[in-house]
Amino acid sequence: MGLGVRAAPFTYVAHALAVVAAAMVLYWCIHFRGGLAFEAANKNLIFNVHPVLMLIGFIILGSEAIMVYKVLPTVNHDTTKLIHLILHAIALVLGAVGIYCAFKNHNETGIANLYSLHSWLGIGTISLYGIQWIFGFLAFFFPKAAPNVRKSALPWHALLGIFVYILALATAELGFLEKLTFLQSSGIDKYGPESFLVNFTALVVVLFGASVVVAAVAPARLEEPQGYAPIPEN
Amino acid sequence: MGLGVRAAPFTYVAHALAVVAAAMVLYWCIHFRGGLAFEAANKNLIFNVHPVLMLIGFIILGSEAIMVYKVLPTVNHDTTKLIHLILHAIALVLGAVGIYCAFKNHNETGIANLYSLHSWLGIGTISLYGIQWIFGFLAFFFPKAAPNVRKSALPWHALLGIFVYILALATAELGFLEKLTFLQSSGIDKYGPESFLVNFTALVVVLFGASVVVAAVAPARLEEPQGYAPIPEN
Repeated sequence: MGLGVRAAPFTYVAHALAVVAAAMVLYWCIHFRGGLAFEAANKNLIFNVHPVLMLIGFIILGSEAIMVYKVLPTVNHDTTKLIHLILHAIALVLGAVGIYCAFKNHNETGIANLYSLHSWLGIGTISLYGIQWIFGFLAFFFPKAAPNVRKSALPWHALLGIFVYILALATAELGFLEKLTFLQSSGIDKYGPESFLVNFTALVVVLFGASVVVAAVAPARLEEPQGYAPIPEN
Repeated sequence: MGLGVRAAPFTYVAHALAVVAAAMVLYWCIHFRGGLAFEAANKNLIFNVHPVLMLIGFIILGSEAIMVYKVLPTVNHDTTKLIHLILHAIALVLGAVGIYCAFKNHNETGIANLYSLHSWLGIGTISLYGIQWIFGFLAFFFPKAAPNVRKSALPWHALLGIFVYILALATAELGFLEKLTFLQSSGIDKYGPESFLVNFTALVVVLFGASVVVAAVAPARLEEPQGYAPIPEN
Protein backbone atom coordinates (compact mmCIF):
# COMPACT_ATOMS: atom_id res chain seq x y z
CA MET A 1 0.00 0.00 0.00
CA GLY A 2 3.05 2.26 0.04
CA LEU A 3 2.19 3.22 3.62
CA GLY A 4 5.72 3.53 4.88
CA VAL A 5 4.80 1.65 8.07
CA ARG A 6 6.01 -1.72 9.28
CA ALA A 7 3.59 -4.52 10.16
CA ALA A 8 5.16 -5.23 13.59
CA PRO A 9 3.43 -2.55 15.74
CA PHE A 10 0.06 -3.53 14.26
CA THR A 11 0.67 -7.18 15.20
CA TYR A 12 1.34 -6.08 18.82
CA VAL A 13 -1.90 -4.07 18.91
CA ALA A 14 -3.77 -7.02 17.36
CA HIS A 15 -2.44 -9.47 19.98
CA ALA A 16 -3.44 -7.15 22.82
CA LEU A 17 -6.93 -6.60 21.38
CA ALA A 18 -7.33 -10.36 20.80
CA VAL A 19 -6.72 -11.01 24.51
CA VAL A 20 -9.20 -8.27 25.46
CA ALA A 21 -11.89 -9.52 23.03
CA ALA A 22 -11.44 -13.15 24.16
CA ALA A 23 -11.73 -12.13 27.82
CA MET A 24 -14.85 -10.06 27.09
CA VAL A 25 -16.69 -12.80 25.19
CA LEU A 26 -15.84 -15.35 27.92
CA TYR A 27 -16.98 -12.96 30.67
CA TRP A 28 -20.23 -12.36 28.76
CA CYS A 29 -21.02 -16.04 28.16
CA ILE A 30 -19.94 -17.26 31.61
CA HIS A 31 -20.88 -14.41 33.96
CA PHE A 32 -23.99 -13.02 32.21
CA ARG A 33 -25.20 -16.04 30.19
CA GLY A 34 -24.56 -18.88 32.68
CA GLY A 35 -21.62 -20.75 31.13
CA LEU A 36 -20.84 -23.24 28.36
CA ALA A 37 -21.89 -26.84 27.75
CA PHE A 38 -22.20 -29.30 24.84
CA GLU A 39 -25.00 -31.23 26.60
CA ALA A 40 -27.31 -29.56 29.13
CA ALA A 41 -30.93 -29.28 30.22
CA ASN A 42 -30.47 -25.50 29.95
CA LYS A 43 -30.14 -25.26 26.15
CA ASN A 44 -28.80 -21.68 26.40
CA LEU A 45 -25.49 -23.12 27.63
CA ILE A 46 -25.16 -25.00 24.32
CA PHE A 47 -25.77 -21.77 22.39
CA ASN A 48 -23.09 -19.99 24.46
CA VAL A 49 -20.40 -22.22 22.93
CA HIS A 50 -21.20 -20.56 19.57
CA PRO A 51 -19.91 -16.99 20.18
CA VAL A 52 -16.91 -18.28 22.17
CA LEU A 53 -15.74 -20.71 19.46
CA MET A 54 -16.51 -18.32 16.58
CA LEU A 55 -14.55 -15.45 18.13
CA ILE A 56 -11.66 -17.28 19.84
CA GLY A 57 -11.48 -20.35 17.59
CA PHE A 58 -12.47 -19.06 14.16
CA ILE A 59 -11.61 -15.34 14.12
CA ILE A 60 -8.70 -15.02 16.56
CA LEU A 61 -6.87 -18.20 15.46
CA GLY A 62 -7.59 -17.29 11.82
CA SER A 63 -6.11 -13.83 12.51
CA GLU A 64 -2.95 -15.39 13.96
CA ALA A 65 -2.72 -17.55 10.82
CA ILE A 66 -3.02 -14.41 8.64
CA MET A 67 -0.39 -12.50 10.65
CA VAL A 68 2.17 -15.30 11.08
CA TYR A 69 4.40 -14.07 8.20
CA LYS A 70 4.58 -10.67 9.96
CA VAL A 71 4.83 -12.02 13.53
CA LEU A 72 7.71 -14.37 12.63
CA PRO A 73 9.37 -12.62 9.66
CA THR A 74 12.81 -14.09 10.32
CA VAL A 75 11.63 -17.70 10.57
CA ASN A 76 12.14 -20.02 7.58
CA HIS A 77 9.33 -19.48 5.01
CA ASP A 78 8.37 -23.19 4.83
CA THR A 79 7.88 -23.20 8.60
CA THR A 80 5.67 -20.09 8.66
CA LYS A 81 3.67 -21.49 5.73
CA LEU A 82 3.09 -24.71 7.70
CA ILE A 83 1.99 -22.71 10.79
CA HIS A 84 -0.27 -20.60 8.51
CA LEU A 85 -2.10 -23.60 7.06
CA ILE A 86 -2.32 -25.52 10.37
CA LEU A 87 -3.73 -22.51 12.27
CA HIS A 88 -6.27 -21.91 9.48
CA ALA A 89 -7.25 -25.61 9.59
CA ILE A 90 -7.78 -25.48 13.38
CA ALA A 91 -9.79 -22.24 12.98
CA LEU A 92 -11.94 -23.90 10.33
CA VAL A 93 -12.65 -26.95 12.50
CA LEU A 94 -13.42 -24.87 15.61
CA GLY A 95 -15.63 -22.60 13.47
CA ALA A 96 -17.54 -25.64 12.19
CA VAL A 97 -18.03 -26.93 15.76
CA GLY A 98 -19.20 -23.44 16.80
CA ILE A 99 -21.76 -23.38 13.98
CA TYR A 100 -22.87 -26.91 14.93
CA CYS A 101 -23.60 -25.65 18.48
CA ALA A 102 -25.88 -22.90 17.12
CA PHE A 103 -27.84 -25.49 15.08
CA LYS A 104 -27.91 -27.90 18.07
CA ASN A 105 -29.35 -25.16 20.30
CA HIS A 106 -31.95 -24.24 17.65
CA ASN A 107 -32.94 -27.85 17.00
CA GLU A 108 -33.28 -28.75 20.69
CA THR A 109 -35.43 -25.68 21.43
CA GLY A 110 -37.52 -25.48 18.23
CA ILE A 111 -35.91 -22.27 16.88
CA ALA A 112 -35.91 -21.91 13.06
CA ASN A 113 -32.59 -22.28 11.24
CA LEU A 114 -30.96 -20.23 8.47
CA TYR A 115 -33.43 -17.38 8.10
CA SER A 116 -31.24 -14.46 9.28
CA LEU A 117 -28.60 -12.44 7.45
CA HIS A 118 -26.13 -13.53 10.17
CA SER A 119 -26.69 -17.18 9.31
CA TRP A 120 -26.58 -16.58 5.54
CA LEU A 121 -23.33 -14.59 5.66
CA GLY A 122 -21.90 -17.03 8.20
CA ILE A 123 -22.53 -20.10 6.03
CA GLY A 124 -21.17 -18.22 3.01
CA THR A 125 -18.07 -17.12 4.93
CA ILE A 126 -17.09 -20.52 6.32
CA SER A 127 -17.72 -22.12 2.89
CA LEU A 128 -15.45 -19.58 1.16
CA TYR A 129 -12.90 -20.05 3.99
CA GLY A 130 -12.88 -23.81 3.35
CA ILE A 131 -12.56 -23.36 -0.43
CA GLN A 132 -9.74 -20.85 0.10
CA TRP A 133 -7.95 -23.31 2.39
CA ILE A 134 -8.20 -26.18 -0.11
CA PHE A 135 -7.00 -24.04 -3.05
CA GLY A 136 -4.17 -22.63 -0.91
CA PHE A 137 -3.12 -26.13 0.18
CA LEU A 138 -3.09 -27.46 -3.40
CA ALA A 139 -1.41 -24.41 -4.95
CA PHE A 140 1.18 -23.53 -2.30
CA PHE A 141 1.80 -26.70 -0.25
CA PHE A 142 0.99 -29.99 -1.92
CA PRO A 143 1.27 -30.89 -4.79
CA LYS A 144 2.25 -27.20 -5.29
CA ALA A 145 1.77 -25.32 -8.56
CA ALA A 146 4.66 -24.23 -10.79
CA PRO A 147 6.61 -21.18 -9.46
CA ASN A 148 5.14 -18.76 -12.04
CA VAL A 149 1.59 -19.96 -11.24
CA ARG A 150 2.21 -19.56 -7.50
CA LYS A 151 3.68 -16.12 -8.09
CA SER A 152 0.60 -14.90 -9.96
CA ALA A 153 -1.84 -16.73 -7.64
CA LEU A 154 -0.38 -15.30 -4.40
CA PRO A 155 -1.87 -11.76 -4.63
CA TRP A 156 -5.27 -13.33 -5.36
CA HIS A 157 -4.88 -15.71 -2.41
CA ALA A 158 -4.11 -12.74 -0.14
CA LEU A 159 -6.89 -10.53 -1.58
CA LEU A 160 -9.56 -13.25 -1.36
CA GLY A 161 -8.29 -14.19 2.10
CA ILE A 162 -8.67 -10.61 3.32
CA PHE A 163 -12.15 -10.46 1.74
CA VAL A 164 -13.24 -13.66 3.53
CA TYR A 165 -11.66 -12.38 6.76
CA ILE A 166 -13.63 -9.10 6.55
CA LEU A 167 -16.79 -11.14 5.86
CA ALA A 168 -16.05 -13.14 9.03
CA LEU A 169 -15.70 -9.91 11.04
CA ALA A 170 -18.96 -8.54 9.57
CA THR A 171 -20.72 -11.82 10.41
CA ALA A 172 -19.47 -11.59 14.00
CA GLU A 173 -20.81 -8.03 14.28
CA LEU A 174 -24.18 -9.25 12.95
CA GLY A 175 -24.12 -12.06 15.51
CA PHE A 176 -23.50 -9.70 18.44
CA LEU A 177 -26.32 -7.43 17.25
CA GLU A 178 -28.77 -10.29 16.60
CA LYS A 179 -28.23 -12.02 19.96
CA LEU A 180 -28.35 -8.75 21.90
CA THR A 181 -31.53 -7.68 20.08
CA PHE A 182 -33.20 -10.95 21.12
CA LEU A 183 -32.02 -10.47 24.73
CA GLN A 184 -33.25 -6.85 24.78
CA SER A 185 -36.63 -7.98 23.38
CA SER A 186 -36.80 -10.49 26.26
CA GLY A 187 -36.26 -7.70 28.75
CA ILE A 188 -32.59 -6.99 29.45
CA ASP A 189 -31.84 -3.27 29.89
CA LYS A 190 -30.94 -1.58 26.56
CA TYR A 191 -28.45 0.66 28.41
CA GLY A 192 -27.48 -1.88 31.10
CA PRO A 193 -24.10 -3.51 31.77
CA GLU A 194 -24.69 -6.59 29.57
CA SER A 195 -25.76 -4.47 26.57
CA PHE A 196 -22.70 -2.26 26.97
CA LEU A 197 -20.40 -5.27 27.38
CA VAL A 198 -21.66 -6.89 24.16
CA ASN A 199 -21.52 -3.67 22.14
CA PHE A 200 -18.03 -2.83 23.39
CA THR A 201 -16.88 -6.39 22.62
CA ALA A 202 -18.16 -5.84 19.06
CA LEU A 203 -16.22 -2.55 18.84
CA VAL A 204 -13.03 -4.23 20.11
CA VAL A 205 -13.50 -6.87 17.38
CA VAL A 206 -13.73 -4.09 14.73
CA LEU A 207 -10.47 -2.50 15.95
CA PHE A 208 -8.82 -5.93 16.25
CA GLY A 209 -9.84 -6.82 12.68
CA ALA A 210 -8.58 -3.49 11.33
CA SER A 211 -5.18 -4.06 13.03
CA VAL A 212 -4.94 -7.55 11.53
CA VAL A 213 -5.75 -6.29 8.00
CA VAL A 214 -3.17 -3.47 8.24
CA ALA A 215 -0.60 -5.96 9.62
CA ALA A 216 -1.39 -8.26 6.67
CA VAL A 217 -0.95 -5.59 3.97
CA ALA A 218 1.97 -3.71 5.57
CA PRO A 219 5.50 -5.03 4.86
CA ALA A 220 7.42 -6.95 7.53
CA ARG A 221 10.46 -4.76 6.74
CA LEU A 222 10.34 -1.26 5.28
CA GLU A 223 12.73 -2.04 2.41
CA GLU A 224 10.28 -4.61 0.96
CA PRO A 225 8.30 -3.31 -1.99
CA GLN A 226 5.00 -4.88 -0.86
CA GLY A 227 3.40 -6.71 2.03
CA TYR A 228 3.30 -10.29 0.84
CA ALA A 229 5.98 -12.71 1.90
CA PRO A 230 8.10 -13.62 -1.12
CA ILE A 231 7.69 -17.11 -2.62
CA PRO A 232 10.97 -19.03 -2.82
CA GLU A 233 11.66 -20.13 -6.38
CA ASN A 234 12.41 -23.80 -5.49
CA MET B 1 -1.83 -4.98 -4.69
CA GLY B 2 0.14 -6.34 -7.64
CA LEU B 3 -3.03 -8.07 -8.84
CA GLY B 4 -2.40 -7.59 -12.54
CA VAL B 5 -6.03 -6.52 -13.07
CA ARG B 6 -7.36 -3.16 -14.18
CA ALA B 7 -9.96 -1.28 -12.14
CA ALA B 8 -12.33 -0.71 -15.09
CA PRO B 9 -14.24 -4.04 -15.12
CA PHE B 10 -14.80 -3.76 -11.35
CA THR B 11 -16.27 -0.26 -11.79
CA TYR B 12 -18.75 -1.68 -14.38
CA VAL B 13 -19.79 -4.45 -11.97
CA ALA B 14 -20.08 -1.88 -9.15
CA HIS B 15 -22.34 0.40 -11.22
CA ALA B 16 -24.60 -2.51 -12.17
CA LEU B 17 -24.85 -3.72 -8.56
CA ALA B 18 -25.52 -0.15 -7.36
CA VAL B 19 -28.56 0.05 -9.66
CA VAL B 20 -29.79 -3.34 -8.44
CA ALA B 21 -29.29 -2.47 -4.74
CA ALA B 22 -30.99 0.94 -5.16
CA ALA B 23 -33.97 -0.65 -6.91
CA MET B 24 -34.23 -3.34 -4.22
CA VAL B 25 -34.19 -0.91 -1.26
CA LEU B 26 -36.79 1.33 -2.99
CA TYR B 27 -39.00 -1.66 -3.77
CA TRP B 28 -38.74 -2.79 -0.14
CA CYS B 29 -39.54 0.61 1.40
CA ILE B 30 -42.29 1.53 -1.10
CA HIS B 31 -43.96 -1.80 -1.92
CA PHE B 32 -43.57 -3.67 1.40
CA ARG B 33 -43.21 -0.80 3.91
CA GLY B 34 -45.77 1.70 2.51
CA GLY B 35 -43.58 4.47 1.08
CA LEU B 36 -41.50 7.46 2.20
CA ALA B 37 -42.40 10.74 3.95
CA PHE B 38 -40.71 13.43 6.06
CA GLU B 39 -44.01 14.27 7.83
CA ALA B 40 -46.78 11.69 8.27
CA ALA B 41 -49.28 10.33 10.74
CA ASN B 42 -47.85 6.89 9.93
CA LYS B 43 -44.42 7.32 11.52
CA ASN B 44 -43.10 4.21 9.74
CA LEU B 45 -42.99 6.26 6.52
CA ILE B 46 -40.51 8.64 8.20
CA PHE B 47 -38.32 5.71 9.19
CA ASN B 48 -38.38 4.39 5.61
CA VAL B 49 -36.41 7.44 4.43
CA HIS B 50 -33.50 6.17 6.57
CA PRO B 51 -32.50 3.00 4.63
CA VAL B 52 -33.15 4.71 1.27
CA LEU B 53 -30.93 7.74 2.02
CA MET B 54 -28.23 5.70 3.78
CA LEU B 55 -27.91 3.25 0.88
CA ILE B 56 -28.49 5.47 -2.16
CA GLY B 57 -27.29 8.80 -0.72
CA PHE B 58 -24.52 7.84 1.66
CA ILE B 59 -23.11 4.51 0.42
CA ILE B 60 -23.76 4.59 -3.35
CA LEU B 61 -22.82 8.27 -3.88
CA GLY B 62 -19.82 7.76 -1.56
CA SER B 63 -18.83 4.74 -3.67
CA GLU B 64 -19.00 6.82 -6.86
CA ALA B 65 -16.79 9.42 -5.15
CA ILE B 66 -14.27 6.68 -4.27
CA MET B 67 -14.27 5.23 -7.80
CA VAL B 68 -14.18 8.50 -9.78
CA TYR B 69 -10.40 8.35 -10.41
CA LYS B 70 -10.91 4.89 -11.94
CA VAL B 71 -14.18 5.70 -13.76
CA LEU B 72 -12.71 8.84 -15.43
CA PRO B 73 -8.97 8.03 -15.59
CA THR B 74 -8.34 10.25 -18.63
CA VAL B 75 -10.04 13.34 -17.19
CA ASN B 76 -7.86 16.14 -15.76
CA HIS B 77 -6.83 15.28 -12.17
CA ASP B 78 -8.08 18.59 -10.70
CA THR B 79 -11.52 17.90 -12.19
CA THR B 80 -11.76 14.35 -10.81
CA LYS B 81 -10.56 15.61 -7.42
CA LEU B 82 -13.34 18.23 -7.43
CA ILE B 83 -15.94 15.57 -8.35
CA HIS B 84 -14.50 13.30 -5.59
CA LEU B 85 -14.90 15.92 -2.86
CA ILE B 86 -18.29 17.18 -4.06
CA LEU B 87 -19.77 13.67 -4.27
CA HIS B 88 -18.42 12.86 -0.79
CA ALA B 89 -19.93 16.11 0.55
CA ILE B 90 -23.35 15.27 -0.94
CA ALA B 91 -23.09 11.73 0.47
CA LEU B 92 -22.26 13.15 3.90
CA VAL B 93 -25.24 15.55 3.85
CA LEU B 94 -27.69 12.88 2.62
CA GLY B 95 -26.30 10.49 5.23
CA ALA B 96 -26.87 13.07 7.97
CA VAL B 97 -30.47 13.63 6.76
CA GLY B 98 -30.97 9.85 6.70
CA ILE B 99 -29.76 9.56 10.30
CA TYR B 100 -32.00 12.48 11.29
CA CYS B 101 -35.01 10.55 9.92
CA ALA B 102 -34.19 7.55 12.14
CA PHE B 103 -34.02 9.82 15.22
CA LYS B 104 -37.22 11.64 14.12
CA ASN B 105 -39.07 8.33 13.81
CA HIS B 106 -37.78 7.18 17.22
CA ASN B 107 -38.62 10.47 18.93
CA GLU B 108 -42.14 10.66 17.48
CA THR B 109 -42.94 7.07 18.47
CA GLY B 110 -41.14 6.83 21.83
CA ILE B 111 -38.44 4.38 20.67
CA ALA B 112 -35.10 4.61 22.56
CA ASN B 113 -32.12 6.11 20.72
CA LEU B 114 -28.50 4.98 20.43
CA TYR B 115 -28.58 1.70 22.29
CA SER B 116 -27.81 -0.69 19.40
CA LEU B 117 -24.51 -1.66 17.79
CA HIS B 118 -25.97 -0.40 14.47
CA SER B 119 -26.44 3.09 15.93
CA TRP B 120 -23.04 3.10 17.65
CA LEU B 121 -21.13 2.02 14.55
CA GLY B 122 -23.25 4.34 12.40
CA ILE B 123 -22.50 7.44 14.49
CA GLY B 124 -18.84 6.45 14.60
CA THR B 125 -18.75 5.91 10.83
CA ILE B 126 -20.34 9.20 9.80
CA SER B 127 -18.15 11.07 12.30
CA LEU B 128 -14.98 9.51 10.86
CA TYR B 129 -16.33 10.18 7.35
CA GLY B 130 -16.75 13.88 8.19
CA ILE B 131 -13.28 14.12 9.78
CA GLN B 132 -11.78 12.36 6.76
CA TRP B 133 -13.55 14.83 4.43
CA ILE B 134 -12.28 17.89 6.33
CA PHE B 135 -8.68 16.59 6.48
CA GLY B 136 -8.84 15.67 2.79
CA PHE B 137 -10.19 19.11 1.87
CA LEU B 138 -7.48 20.93 3.84
CA ALA B 139 -4.60 18.70 2.75
CA PHE B 140 -5.43 18.12 -0.92
CA PHE B 141 -7.71 20.98 -2.02
CA PHE B 142 -7.51 24.17 0.01
CA PRO B 143 -5.19 25.55 1.36
CA LYS B 144 -3.33 22.37 0.23
CA ALA B 145 -0.31 20.93 2.00
CA ALA B 146 3.19 20.98 0.51
CA PRO B 147 3.75 18.39 -2.28
CA ASN B 148 5.90 16.09 -0.11
CA VAL B 149 3.30 16.19 2.69
CA ARG B 150 0.50 15.39 0.21
CA LYS B 151 2.56 12.59 -1.24
CA SER B 152 3.06 10.92 2.12
CA ALA B 153 -0.50 11.66 3.30
CA LEU B 154 -2.22 10.18 0.21
CA PRO B 155 -1.78 6.46 1.06
CA TRP B 156 -3.14 7.18 4.57
CA HIS B 157 -6.08 9.11 3.09
CA ALA B 158 -6.87 6.12 0.85
CA LEU B 159 -6.36 3.51 3.60
CA LEU B 160 -8.48 5.38 6.18
CA GLY B 161 -11.07 6.09 3.49
CA ILE B 162 -11.36 2.37 2.67
CA PHE B 163 -11.58 1.58 6.40
CA VAL B 164 -14.43 4.08 6.90
CA TYR B 165 -16.11 2.76 3.73
CA ILE B 166 -15.99 -0.84 5.02
CA LEU B 167 -17.39 0.39 8.36
CA ALA B 168 -20.26 2.02 6.42
CA LEU B 169 -20.95 -1.27 4.63
CA ALA B 170 -20.86 -3.20 7.92
CA THR B 171 -23.23 -0.67 9.50
CA ALA B 172 -25.64 -1.10 6.57
CA GLU B 173 -25.57 -4.89 7.04
CA LEU B 174 -26.31 -4.39 10.76
CA GLY B 175 -29.20 -2.09 9.82
CA PHE B 176 -30.78 -4.63 7.46
CA LEU B 177 -30.48 -7.34 10.12
CA GLU B 178 -31.80 -5.15 12.96
CA LYS B 179 -34.86 -3.87 11.06
CA LEU B 180 -35.71 -7.31 9.69
CA THR B 181 -35.34 -8.88 13.15
CA PHE B 182 -37.86 -6.35 14.53
CA LEU B 183 -40.25 -7.05 11.61
CA GLN B 184 -39.91 -10.83 12.10
CA SER B 185 -40.58 -10.42 15.84
CA SER B 186 -43.76 -8.52 14.90
CA GLY B 187 -44.89 -11.42 12.77
CA ILE B 188 -43.61 -11.25 9.17
CA ASP B 189 -42.67 -14.66 7.76
CA LYS B 190 -39.00 -15.52 8.44
CA TYR B 191 -38.84 -17.29 5.05
CA GLY B 192 -41.34 -15.04 3.25
CA PRO B 193 -40.77 -12.68 0.28
CA GLU B 194 -39.96 -9.57 2.36
CA SER B 195 -37.37 -11.42 4.48
CA PHE B 196 -35.74 -12.80 1.34
CA LEU B 197 -35.81 -9.38 -0.37
CA VAL B 198 -34.07 -7.68 2.58
CA ASN B 199 -31.45 -10.42 3.01
CA PHE B 200 -30.68 -10.50 -0.72
CA THR B 201 -30.42 -6.69 -0.78
CA ALA B 202 -27.85 -7.01 2.03
CA LEU B 203 -25.92 -9.62 0.00
CA VAL B 204 -25.97 -7.38 -3.10
CA VAL B 205 -24.55 -4.57 -0.93
CA VAL B 206 -21.68 -6.86 0.19
CA LEU B 207 -20.81 -7.72 -3.44
CA PHE B 208 -21.19 -4.08 -4.47
CA GLY B 209 -18.86 -2.94 -1.67
CA ALA B 210 -16.27 -5.59 -2.55
CA SER B 211 -16.29 -4.42 -6.21
CA VAL B 212 -15.81 -0.80 -5.11
CA VAL B 213 -12.87 -1.69 -2.84
CA VAL B 214 -11.15 -3.73 -5.57
CA ALA B 215 -11.78 -0.90 -8.09
CA ALA B 216 -10.25 1.53 -5.57
CA VAL B 217 -7.06 -0.50 -4.99
CA ALA B 218 -6.57 -1.76 -8.58
CA PRO B 219 -4.69 0.53 -11.00
CA ALA B 220 -6.59 2.46 -13.72
CA ARG B 221 -3.97 1.27 -16.22
CA LEU B 222 -1.89 -1.88 -15.94
CA GLU B 223 1.44 -0.06 -16.39
CA GLU B 224 0.88 1.96 -13.19
CA PRO B 225 2.81 0.62 -10.21
CA GLN B 226 -0.07 1.09 -7.74
CA GLY B 227 -3.73 1.99 -7.55
CA TYR B 228 -3.71 5.58 -6.34
CA ALA B 229 -4.02 8.47 -8.77
CA PRO B 230 -0.70 10.33 -8.87
CA ILE B 231 -0.54 13.76 -7.25
CA PRO B 232 0.61 16.49 -9.66
CA GLU B 233 3.65 18.31 -8.27
CA ASN B 234 2.24 21.85 -8.81
